[in-house]
Amino acid sequence: MSRQIGVIIDYLTEEYRRQIDAAAAQHGFAVRYYPDSKSAAGSVDDCEILFGHCSQKVIASAKSLKWFCCCWAGVDRFCKDELYQNPDCLLSNSSGAYGVTIAEHLIMTALMLLRRQGEYGDLIRSGGWDTLPGSIHSLHGSRITVLGAGDIGTEFARRARAFCPAKIVGVRRSAKSGDPAFDEMRTNAALDAILPQTDLLVMALPNTPDTAGILSRERMALLPEGAYVLNVGRGAAVDQDALIDALNSGHLAGAALDVTVPEPLPADHPLRGAKNILLTPHVAGNTTLPYTRQRTIDMFLEDLENYVAGKPLRRVVDRKMFY
Amino acid sequence: MSRQIGVIIDYLTEEYRRQIDAAAAQHGFAVRYYPDSKSAAGSVDDCEILFGHCSQKVIASAKSLKWFCCCWAGVDRFCKDELYQNPDCLLSNSSGAYGVTIAEHLIMTALMLLRRQGEYGDLIRSGGWDTLPGSIHSLHGSRITVLGAGDIGTEFARRARAFCPAKIVGVRRSAKSGDPAFDEMRTNAALDAILPQTDLLVMALPNTPDTAGILSRERMALLPEGAYVLNVGRGAAVDQDALIDALNSGHLAGAALDVTVPEPLPADHPLRGAKNILLTPHVAGNTTLPYTRQRTIDMFLEDLENYVAGKPLRRVVDRKMFY
Repeated sequence: MSRQIGVIIDYLTEEYRRQIDAAAAQHGFAVRYYPDSKSAAGSVDDCEILFGHCSQKVIASAKSLKWFCCCWAGVDRFCKDELYQNPDCLLSNSSGAYGVTIAEHLIMTALMLLRRQGEYGDLIRSGGWDTLPGSIHSLHGSRITVLGAGDIGTEFARRARAFCPAKIVGVRRSAKSGDPAFDEMRTNAALDAILPQTDLLVMALPNTPDTAGILSRERMALLPEGAYVLNVGRGAAVDQDALIDALNSGHLAGAALDVTVPEPLPADHPLRGAKNILLTPHVAGNTTLPYTRQRTIDMFLEDLENYVAGKPLRRVVDRKMFY
Repeated sequence: MSRQIGVIIDYLTEEYRRQIDAAAAQHGFAVRYYPDSKSAAGSVDDCEILFGHCSQKVIASAKSLKWFCCCWAGVDRFCKDELYQNPDCLLSNSSGAYGVTIAEHLIMTALMLLRRQGEYGDLIRSGGWDTLPGSIHSLHGSRITVLGAGDIGTEFARRARAFCPAKIVGVRRSAKSGDPAFDEMRTNAALDAILPQTDLLVMALPNTPDTAGILSRERMALLPEGAYVLNVGRGAAVDQDALIDALNSGHLAGAALDVTVPEPLPADHPLRGAKNILLTPHVAGNTTLPYTRQRTIDMFLEDLENYVAGKPLRRVVDRKMFY
């Protein structure tokens, strides 16, 4: 019996199937495809590899699993050791597939906040046609801090640079140097010193014990009056009660959240009523883009080569680090 | 009696006043300041130069006027010869001050259309939290055509380039080469050949007899199904009835108009109800940005040097060309 790969993705095309089948056959694997975890349940016992958006339940049931390649970038839900029957099971993510679309979301929402597009939308919907009193703001000349300078933060910085900001500072856990799109790269230890010089704070962090609550009430107070906050990482990184207060008091001029606690965000949740908040329902990393989809396939097949050759996976996740 | 400059701007600051006074004094001019044309009416008879957002009435009443420097980029309203008591009166504009802010508006509205932000806004306002069925689209890989490749079109292209589009084609009246931000520069004669290869059509044209109705019903039909149209030039460039039809039939996937005919757009105007339309009330070139304001002052003072030295004005407008 040949070795088995189970692929659970809802965006399979004939072309993707052809690409995966060809690579698998070359290495003596057979592939079974499922549109979702429900249809895969009970039939992945013999899968050595799983790729896609698998439920925790499917992972936990996969007795022969040696490698799970998740088609998402954020894999915090899959970092519990007890999830895996095989304690050495490899976990990899698809970091690198989402930077392009999430960076577009970030530029869009940053400009919507700066240009007061929420208020202009209300005005047009009410049948009006006027220039609002007060000013708008610009990426041009803004001081931008990117908290989490991985694929998403870097793709954002590359695009933001074209708008001639005053400065783009990247903040990351380790001190390794960043992409040239950043003017400066600092570690988390410098965060409190950087926040007072930040007009636009972009948060693109994985969910780890270190990042939970990183934008605390105290740190929000360090941002200058009129600053903006954008979060596309995980909702837990932001103290939401403090954010509501900072928006309603006018300390912050606006916030755009694509991630919240909880998700879905209830219809009567107080975040929805905060002043100048721009909410989107966790769609920044929308997987409907052909580019994003093809990248997840390409990256899986690249790491399949590594796996078969016994080399380290390029996007392996340290389950203790959560990324 | 010294020669007079009249300055009519509503964004005068002490600093701008200091800059203008210093330059004027150096050349033997005295300056009078007015916050608006109403307050200037009847008192500009002796002004040799007017700078700012002057009404046609004030211009027509200025008996001694030799140069009107308009603080807007679009000066079509000031191109009628009969407006000027002195037939040789110079007209200049402030093209170059608005590219930065209008380019930000264009990137914002392009992304809002591509990412279906209008629908997501409706969903959030209704208390929902879901991914919409169907796909979103991306600047990444898009074929962009910029009709009107002046300051605004060029600043847009520079920013759009950072999003890795498939191609950016500029289309302009004359064949002179454009900024390197464009992959290719064509003349208006090639427009019909370019439209079928355009996913996103950005219009940033001055209002001239040549540009009125340039996006006709026939040309809209040349755009591929699912294309997007953005207009920040003048409303008259677009056949609005044809646009409504093209949006409602689904031939076009969306349109963002910052300019319309008429302005203000009446509350019951059919454009407001067109499918996937994103309207803004002529605020793309918002003059509340300090950058934009300072640029209009700097450019006026630069041309004041030219005027005094008897050199051609850098931003002189050919009243027969309308720009």
